[in-house]
Amino acid sequence: MQEQLVLGIDIGGTNIAFSLVNKNGELLAEQCIKTTSIKNPKELPGIIKNQINSSVITAIGIGAPSSNYFSGVIENAPNLNWGEDIPLVQYFEDVFKVKTVLTNDANAAAIGEQVFGVAKGMTDFAVITLGTGLGAGVVINNALVYGKFGTAGEYGHVIIEENGRNCGCGRIGCLETYCSTTGFLRSVKELEHKDKSSSLINSDKNYAAEEIFEFAINGDVFCNYVVDYTAQKLGLALANFAAFSNPEAFILFGGIAQNGEFFREKVEASMNKNLLNLYQGKTKVLTSSLHNKNAAILGSAALAFKEIA
Amino acid sequence: MQEQLVLGIDIGGTNIAFSLVNKNGELLAEQCIKTTSIKNPKELPGIIKNQINSSVITAIGIGAPSSNYFSGVIENAPNLNWGEDIPLVQYFEDVFKVKTVLTNDANAAAIGEQVFGVAKGMTDFAVITLGTGLGAGVVINNALVYGKFGTAGEYGHVIIEENGRNCGCGRIGCLETYCSTTGFLRSVKELEHKDKSSSLINSDKNYAAEEIFEFAINGDVFCNYVVDYTAQKLGLALANFAAFSNPEAFILFGGIAQNGEFFREKVEASMNKNLLNLYQGKTKVLTSSLHNKNAAILGSAALAFKEIA
Repeated sequence: MQEQLVLGIDIGGTNIAFSLVNKNGELLAEQCIKTTSIKNPKELPGIIKNQINSSVITAIGIGAPSSNYFSGVIENAPNLNWGEDIPLVQYFEDVFKVKTVLTNDANAAAIGEQVFGVAKGMTDFAVITLGTGLGAGVVINNALVYGKFGTAGEYGHVIIEENGRNCGCGRIGCLETYCSTTGFLRSVKELEHKDKSSSLINSDKNYAAEEIFEFAINGDVFCNYVVDYTAQKLGLALANFAAFSNPEAFILFGGIAQNGEFFREKVEASMNKNLLNLYQGKTKVLTSSLHNKNAAILGSAALAFKEIA
Repeated sequence: MQEQLVLGIDIGGTNIAFSLVNKNGELLAEQCIKTTSIKNPKELPGIIKNQINSSVITAIGIGAPSSNYFSGVIENAPNLNWGEDIPLVQYFEDVFKVKTVLTNDANAAAIGEQVFGVAKGMTDFAVITLGTGLGAGVVINNALVYGKFGTAGEYGHVIIEENGRNCGCGRIGCLETYCSTTGFLRSVKELEHKDKSSSLINSDKNYAAEEIFEFAINGDVFCNYVVDYTAQKLGLALANFAAFSNPEAFILFGGIAQNGEFFREKVEASMNKNLLNLYQGKTKVLTSSLHNKNAAILGSAALAFKEIA
């Protein structure tokens, strides 16, 4: 009998990654296309179908920002330039003729961490994704939190500065304008404390986040200040999120979270500084142990397997 | 056969209210004692036992701030001066010899609203209590959110001002220092915009919150400013809380929430102003329809009935 496979898709503001996935969580031939290359999302199913062996697929799982699990629609995603309401599940089911499930990319990552990553065995945790945007997949009582209308967990759009930075969502001061990878790079440009010895002081180059971290680790005072600034804001936000759902752990995932211990330790210190007594010593900050691109694909695939179980 | 009764107890920073409750949610002889009159919480069960007919009680439900449902302990409650960890369930079971359940006072109120109040039929909502402190009882997917360690929903201790007011919890800038009834009265004292015609301008009297609201409704510009200031901060906080759990409604309960439409409308306007597009038109702000003292007793009682069902 042929092996049962699903198609897992991770749609981010920068890349769309996808792969056939088997029940052991093995990715068979992962592929990636640039999100900006897709002008009309209705064409996405056809483009993906041309790149894989679609005859073996029994279900499809998709993780994407601002997605509504109940309706199968991407609603007003600030980081995708696809217009208002995208009925992505319908688009995929029309082309592939198999059951398709859509969830928030962060929700997908949370399930990926729970099935294959550092959240194994946890029933109450949140994955915080730090990519183009900032998202959260929140598991409470061993179930994903969808909310009444299917769109819970938009931690990136918690307002943390009343007169803060403009956000893609049209409002001001959202957490993701500071603590996503994009927000981090914005701080590199906007913060004023450049010391004269900084590698950035006489450079017009647009450094990548990894390069800024590299400078910081090697003692660049300004770059370290930007990392501290980002970690402090994120740690305070996590302390506040702890008061909401009292989780066992926050798992930092993707983008600037890939810089590992150097960043995690600073975020944890800031969280502990701001944490209510009640939660002290009970709330961990962890870094994803999965290869970052894959966890969301794995999570989407795990959800798809669940749908056809 | 004798009617099955439970004892419902609501412990707040100001009052301890309790009553025998029957299965129809009727309170038989509600009573109230001052919280400050209880120096040693170990004496509370005996004091209550002397005031009621304890022979008919089949279970006890208690709602109290900073309570841990799992352990039956009140942990570091900033608004009760009872010391660190109070094993209240044990104290009550020792004296009454019946099953006792302890939960956050706001959780109790949430169950009270769901069984007897405006949250009837709702599966995803949060009750926000605005008394001495500010608490939240959060229902997601038709179940109370307890979190990993039993102490979720401490919305009052979300930090909203990094350099803000000192809080009883030892930290700075917590929501409850602005938006609880105590926080509201603090704003009356601390805000500087007194107009010359204000009823408060030449008065040293410590007005009650209801009186300030009365002045505001009758056109006192300063008092109205304080109400606006409080409602704006609370509305912004609710917009942020919506991004966590995407609830159907927030229900304002107790203390300054008792001022009804005048306050509710301002809170709703501020929430809508700050709400992510995704949630616009889907998130209601309601005021509790229950007599405020009773809802928490009713909710505690409902939980107690559940334990012995």
